[in-house]
Amino acid sequence: MKFGTGIGIVISLVGIAMGATMEGTNVMVVLNVPAILIVLVGTLGASIAACGLAANIRLPKLFIKALMPDELDLVARVEELVGYAERARRDGLLALDEAVKEIQDPFTKKGVQLVVDGTDPDLVAAVLDAENEAMRKRHTAARDPFMQAGALAPTMGIIGTVFGLVNVMNNLNNPSSLGPLIAAAFLATLMGVGSANVVFLPMANRLKELSEEEMHFREMTLEGILAIQAGDNPRVIAEKLMAYVPPSERPSEEEQAARAAAQKQAA
Amino acid sequence: MKFGTGIGIVISLVGIAMGATMEGTNVMVVLNVPAILIVLVGTLGASIAACGLAANIRLPKLFIKALMPDELDLVARVEELVGYAERARRDGLLALDEAVKEIQDPFTKKGVQLVVDGTDPDLVAAVLDAENEAMRKRHTAARDPFMQAGALAPTMGIIGTVFGLVNVMNNLNNPSSLGPLIAAAFLATLMGVGSANVVFLPMANRLKELSEEEMHFREMTLEGILAIQAGDNPRVIAEKLMAYVPPSERPSEEEQAARAAAQKQAA
Amino acid sequence: MKFGTGIGIVISLVGIAMGATMEGTNVMVVLNVPAILIVLVGTLGASIAACGLAANIRLPKLFIKALMPDELDLVARVEELVGYAERARRDGLLALDEAVKEIQDPFTKKGVQLVVDGTDPDLVAAVLDAENEAMRKRHTAARDPFMQAGALAPTMGIIGTVFGLVNVMNNLNNPSSLGPLIAAAFLATLMGVGSANVVFLPMANRLKELSEEEMHFREMTLEGILAIQAGDNPRVIAEKLMAYVPPSERPSEEEQAARAAAQKQAA
Amino acid sequence: MKFGTGIGIVISLVGIAMGATMEGTNVMVVLNVPAILIVLVGTLGASIAACGLAANIRLPKLFIKALMPDELDLVARVEELVGYAERARRDGLLALDEAVKEIQDPFTKKGVQLVVDGTDPDLVAAVLDAENEAMRKRHTAARDPFMQAGALAPTMGIIGTVFGLVNVMNNLNNPSSLGPLIAAAFLATLMGVGSANVVFLPMANRLKELSEEEMHFREMTLEGILAIQAGDNPRVIAEKLMAYVPPSERPSEEEQAARAAAQKQAA
Amino acid sequence: MKFGTGIGIVISLVGIAMGATMEGTNVMVVLNVPAILIVLVGTLGASIAACGLAANIRLPKLFIKALMPDELDLVARVEELVGYAERARRDGLLALDEAVKEIQDPFTKKGVQLVVDGTDPDLVAAVLDAENEAMRKRHTAARDPFMQAGALAPTMGIIGTVFGLVNVMNNLNNPSSLGPLIAAAFLATLMGVGSANVVFLPMANRLKELSEEEMHFREMTLEGILAIQAGDNPRVIAEKLMAYVPPSERPSEEEQAARAAAQKQAA
Repeated sequence: MKFGTGIGIVISLVGIAMGATMEGTNVMVVLNVPAILIVLVGTLGASIAACGLAANIRLPKLFIKALMPDELDLVARVEELVGYAERARRDGLLALDEAVKEIQDPFTKKGVQLVVDGTDPDLVAAVLDAENEAMRKRHTAARDPFMQAGALAPTMGIIGTVFGLVNVMNNLNNPSSLGPLIAAAFLATLMGVGSANVVFLPMANRLKELSEEEMHFREMTLEGILAIQAGDNPRVIAEKLMAYVPPSERPSEEEQAARAAAQKQAA
Repeated sequence: MKFGTGIGIVISLVGIAMGATMEGTNVMVVLNVPAILIVLVGTLGASIAACGLAANIRLPKLFIKALMPDELDLVARVEELVGYAERARRDGLLALDEAVKEIQDPFTKKGVQLVVDGTDPDLVAAVLDAENEAMRKRHTAARDPFMQAGALAPTMGIIGTVFGLVNVMNNLNNPSSLGPLIAAAFLATLMGVGSANVVFLPMANRLKELSEEEMHFREMTLEGILAIQAGDNPRVIAEKLMAYVPPSERPSEEEQAARAAAQKQAA
Repeated sequence: MKFGTGIGIVISLVGIAMGATMEGTNVMVVLNVPAILIVLVGTLGASIAACGLAANIRLPKLFIKALMPDELDLVARVEELVGYAERARRDGLLALDEAVKEIQDPFTKKGVQLVVDGTDPDLVAAVLDAENEAMRKRHTAARDPFMQAGALAPTMGIIGTVFGLVNVMNNLNNPSSLGPLIAAAFLATLMGVGSANVVFLPMANRLKELSEEEMHFREMTLEGILAIQAGDNPRVIAEKLMAYVPPSERPSEEEQAARAAAQKQAA
Repeated sequence: MKFGTGIGIVISLVGIAMGATMEGTNVMVVLNVPAILIVLVGTLGASIAACGLAANIRLPKLFIKALMPDELDLVARVEELVGYAERARRDGLLALDEAVKEIQDPFTKKGVQLVVDGTDPDLVAAVLDAENEAMRKRHTAARDPFMQAGALAPTMGIIGTVFGLVNVMNNLNNPSSLGPLIAAAFLATLMGVGSANVVFLPMANRLKELSEEEMHFREMTLEGILAIQAGDNPRVIAEKLMAYVPPSERPSEEEQAARAAAQKQAA
Repeated sequence: MKFGTGIGIVISLVGIAMGATMEGTNVMVVLNVPAILIVLVGTLGASIAACGLAANIRLPKLFIKALMPDELDLVARVEELVGYAERARRDGLLALDEAVKEIQDPFTKKGVQLVVDGTDPDLVAAVLDAENEAMRKRHTAARDPFMQAGALAPTMGIIGTVFGLVNVMNNLNNPSSLGPLIAAAFLATLMGVGSANVVFLPMANRLKELSEEEMHFREMTLEGILAIQAGDNPRVIAEKLMAYVPPSERPSEEEQAARAAAQKQAA
């Protein structure tokens, strides 16, 4: 389900190309070098001016992240945390020291480590909150070039088209060339509006949603770690954390019982 | 009263179609295949890119929900909660154990169950708040494709029209075909602006309002459950919860007395 | 001063009509049936789709409310509350029981009644806050159709004009009819932009301001009721509540003294 | 430095007029009566409809306030407050009773008076906060007509231009009159966009900034008054309040020493 | 990496110029005196009207700041603060008195000085928070002229173009001059849209990001100073402050050990 961004861009481009072809236009005219220079290079430059070089160098990585985002399995994380809670209840918080080494996710690892170290609960919350807040700021800064490009590309398209029309106006005494010149001027608008609405803005929105999902995931994790430290009943922790899971993905009661049994056996 | 969305879309389309027909246009020209491909397929693709595949697959379900929303009866919920409060006052909180089984609404059920289980009040509030917050996030994510489509469709319309005009400009030496070609180019704008303003944006707004109504409903329920747990006087609970009901829907004092009597008899 | 909305709309329409007439246009052409159908019926339908039927049925009532809003006399309310505070100080909170019956404003009445009933101060604040918050939500929902119409009407105008231009383009071989047809197409834009900017958006803004004034009025009342319950000195209450009154409307010290004397005599 | 608004409007008008003259246009054509009626009267009417009559009657006063704003001397206020703090430390809070009479600024006066009267610190903060909050709401309401006008004037310009074009379209059979008629139609757009961007929007922004400066000034004053009441060390108060002063305006250490010496002598 | 803004503007201008040249336009025509007067002088005047003279006089300084921003080294600051924490732990808070003199950054210096002076922790936090809040307000006010210019320049461009078209319309009887006149009219649009999108808006965004980075830097510093005052374990402080550093810039464990050893030796 997560591969949607790439599929969506392809669907959108195919729809537009088919429609334009049926109208009688050769869609390949869009690959017009002046339009590409004005719109894409102009937008890239303005985006570098707006967000700095570093943020723009990270763009290819973000493209890939938006196309192939990490899967965040809320239910698995709940079960993982409930598992630690059970072990902590049975054998004490220090028993988690061993578990820490196997934890994959750095955020969970840092949290459980702090708990094992006997850090004050308020401080655990403060450190993990600061991690989350800093991640939120990093994500916002990281997707800013896409948002800038989404806003800038159409106006770069207008610049390209107006430049083209200035050219047209200076050739009014050569009427036979007017049509193709005006058509060429419009290509910059197409490139600008198209790149913004099919690529940049959807990408920025997708990255925003992925960031919110990750924040949600981490908030649940933080809640779970604090509950483990407070020594809450694992059943209550499970109840609390399940509130973060969409009802449609929550395991049914039978599934829960089955998993609990399996887990007990494994432990 | 809740069926407004479907009726509204029909009224809007009829008004536009009648006006356009009187102006002399055959409105059926709008059903233009290239325009539909560029605007609707282009928008769908960009919406998938922006919000993921899963959110777009849920769209038909949301359409139906916006057209036929659940009725949320605030007064009935107040009376239900006051009824539990009375029973809890008379027979103790544990007496609600039996009532829990009959509760239809999952949120109320979860809340009352937590109360019956003797969960700490702060924890009850935290779990139910987390449920509400997670629901609010789910609703926001769910209506995002409509908001994206509302913003994207007009620009897809512009793309379609500009493609059409590019075609026109390359046919300037065939003047007799210009009129119909320009007219066809405009159809994409009509499709884009029309679908956004008659369908996508109203739909997104309607879903937002429905979500706010449900949040309001749940906040009232949460307030009531916490008051029951605190052992508040049922009359005071009724007063408190009535503040959530619009004055025009509040039962008059006679009605309240009659219902109270009826309820007593039933109990 | 409050009748401004009606006067403003008339001034705006007269200014536009006079200017257009001087330009040589017969302003009556605006009353064009296709334009009215597309813009006004189209907008009404989309607004019903966006906000539900019930909210649109309340529109005439809101029109009248915006044209003839209730006067909210902050100074009179301060004096009323200070009067209750004095009576409560002199004869105890229960002495207000009699006063409650004469209170006109339902919000003040509910508040003072709760105080007389000996309700816990936190609960009084919670109930009255919930009332205010629910009122704010109702007001926001109620003016939403005006905001939707303000956003939708210009785009409906564009739809009408583009439909007209499609018609024009299909009649290019009949040049003499082009001028009037294009002129007719523009009427929808005029109707859309005009209705939005002269009626819908000002109306929505006016209703927002009136709602904020009422919230301000109620916040002051709530503050006063809680101060009465807390047994604050009436002079301090007056000082505190006067902060809510614009300096230009605050009574001078002589006026205050005169009123206080008059009030004492009356009491 | 504060006279910027008037200077700015003049610079902007001169720049536009010079540019337009060089292009060959007689800028006086802008003073076109129909355009003025449609744009300025239309906008004024809609602004009255949106904000009420009273807010629009206050506009000339606000114009003057934006052109010639009060100077707010943060450093002088800090010194004034530190002076009171020293007196209060030396001779007790009651010693400020005499100082109150000489305080010019009503807000400071009210605050110090409350302190001298022995009002509870929380109540002092509450009353002064309510004053500030009410002022903020008044300022927002007061500049709303400028913001409305900034948003409405360009659309009124479009209305005027479209009316003009309707007129043009009905005169297509008189080609020699077309040029001047179209030119006249454009004047409404010029008037609308120009008045919004050179006058209304800059004015609204300037008033917003002046309001924020005054809020900042008052927050510092409030902080100082509460610190005086708390009996804080005057040196610490000075340190705390200096944080509100931009570093570039803070007196150097020598200046501070000199002033302190001068003040001591004067006291 | 920080020199991005200048590079970005150059890339954008080169891209646009190359594209326009390939389209056949001489890009130098953009340097059109009327367009520059209307757009740049008109925008400057309106920006002075909107933000005051002082804010506009600071613009060249801000240009330079955006082009060559200070480097903020989070890791170095963490190490500096951890160093103070270690010294304070070893020799007491007063031992920092000597360190204060060597601190370069005025904010850190003020904070540590307050700590050394034995100021109450709440007051230290309040003073430093007030400094940060005042800086945030100053930054927002300082970049406002760029944001205003970004919004105003395109509309000034429209004013210039419409003025040009008015001129064109009054010269319709001289067809051979029409083309160049229309072309000249378009130059104002190019200047307005170009300056806004290549310079003003990217500049405003860059300054916003730099301000946020500085706020982040200062929040971390404030957190560190308060932790030093509270006598927290230096290792815990390091852990806490590292949360503010992006994971990619955090020193690896070996680096940390090496640095710690080096620091010990130096101390």
